[in-house]
Amino acid sequence: MSTSEKAPIGVFDSGIGGLTVVKSIMARMPEERIVYFGDTARVPYGIKSPETVKEYALQITDFLLKRDVKMIVIACNTVSAAAENDVRAKASPIPVIGVVEAGARVAIDHSTRNRLVGVIGTLATVNSGTYESSIKAIDPGMRVFSKSCPMLVPLAEEGWIDNDVAMLTLKHYLNDFQDKNLDSLILGCTHYPLFKDSIRTLLPASVDIIDSADAVAKLVDDTLRSQNLRNTAGKGSLDCFVSDKPQRFQLLAERFLGRNVNQLEVVNVA
Amino acid sequence: MSTSEKAPIGVFDSGIGGLTVVKSIMARMPEERIVYFGDTARVPYGIKSPETVKEYALQITDFLLKRDVKMIVIACNTVSAAAENDVRAKASPIPVIGVVEAGARVAIDHSTRNRLVGVIGTLATVNSGTYESSIKAIDPGMRVFSKSCPMLVPLAEEGWIDNDVAMLTLKHYLNDFQDKNLDSLILGCTHYPLFKDSIRTLLPASVDIIDSADAVAKLVDDTLRSQNLRNTAGKGSLDCFVSDKPQRFQLLAERFLGRNVNQLEVVNVA
Repeated sequence: MSTSEKAPIGVFDSGIGGLTVVKSIMARMPEERIVYFGDTARVPYGIKSPETVKEYALQITDFLLKRDVKMIVIACNTVSAAAENDVRAKASPIPVIGVVEAGARVAIDHSTRNRLVGVIGTLATVNSGTYESSIKAIDPGMRVFSKSCPMLVPLAEEGWIDNDVAMLTLKHYLNDFQDKNLDSLILGCTHYPLFKDSIRTLLPASVDIIDSADAVAKLVDDTLRSQNLRNTAGKGSLDCFVSDKPQRFQLLAERFLGRNVNQLEVVNVA
Repeated sequence: MSTSEKAPIGVFDSGIGGLTVVKSIMARMPEERIVYFGDTARVPYGIKSPETVKEYALQITDFLLKRDVKMIVIACNTVSAAAENDVRAKASPIPVIGVVEAGARVAIDHSTRNRLVGVIGTLATVNSGTYESSIKAIDPGMRVFSKSCPMLVPLAEEGWIDNDVAMLTLKHYLNDFQDKNLDSLILGCTHYPLFKDSIRTLLPASVDIIDSADAVAKLVDDTLRSQNLRNTAGKGSLDCFVSDKPQRFQLLAERFLGRNVNQLEVVNVA
């Protein structure tokens, strides 16, 4: 672990969807070095027991601490829900940022009219109620309406983010939100920022769309500055590590990250 | 293991899609007892290495042999491609039926005009070339045209098999087959039989659609009869075992099987 501002930020996810979070961090803080780990051999986490998810998350935390990171970002809703406190305890004193809390905080700030937040996510995330409990822990007066959207991850991985199939699927899922008078809608899955523009066209203009990747990047920035760990003079870099090289890795990585992954290494953290 | 006709047939899959094969077996041979194992804790296999898939397949084979089965049916394209020979060696002398070979044989029988077979499957199955090599091993003069359809498994699990999204998605995928003069199209994934009626409306009537679940049931029937192992006087039953109880298990099981699963047990085979 490191408390030097020049040290990299560690980011991890069960797969490569977390690269949308990396993209937001790089856009906001291009001077920072990033080490990314995607557990592509063991994805998806959403169907596994919380105990197993915890075990995997702590193995990855170990790996990132050995890479001398100054902060750990959990770019995975399932891990954020199941193991954030365990990761925080292990990583202490270096700061840990979770995607759920980041999204919840920004959504509350954007939901002052009707105090009603919408959440879309995977089946596992929505069933866990993690966004609802995070939001209510911060502000018990908020109401939360959630809907799982199982087709969106496969659509994103197929690259269908704004074609006729994608738009029709989004219409099906978002239909339930139309008459709810939402203040904001949290994109509660690392794959969903790819649909942001498409979703924008399908909801009333009064609904703020909360991109959890952007929310994480903002919280990372604020936290690093408050701890005097923000690197504002670096060149920036991205080193990617995965536990298995999946089918179509480069294609998918480019889709989530918006550019090629040059530094890629397969490692075993188990 | 057992060589008694009263013993059950063992069927396994990486998940619960293999219940479409069980459904076909039960429809054709309602007197048979079936023991099903779905490796729901470790699904999906398609992204894992062949060595890992082999290891898992042999663990499951062990489990089924201990349940005293008279035959093992591999209702999983990935296992059929990666580990069929290993399962056969371990299970010997009891017979082993694989979904790929069963589908390949039926497709060849139905492709005498242009000798051109189409295959749709997951990314892993299509990239492995397993149907092409199985078909050419039996009849080197056949031509095979394959296309991966990554959206179909999530569509089936969402229950969208003939709505507007499903039809539009199928049109995208089947478009490449329209001008190919196919004799037959293999549904090369255990989830795909759910789309059979929808696919039928989108292809020329001259294309025979090969439901690999039905192909397996036929080969099971033929093989049991040839070895005097066919139970024609039993009451029939289905015992289901899974390695983890996934989200929405009963709903999905009913979708694939066409009825409730009454006997369900979670077991660890590792």
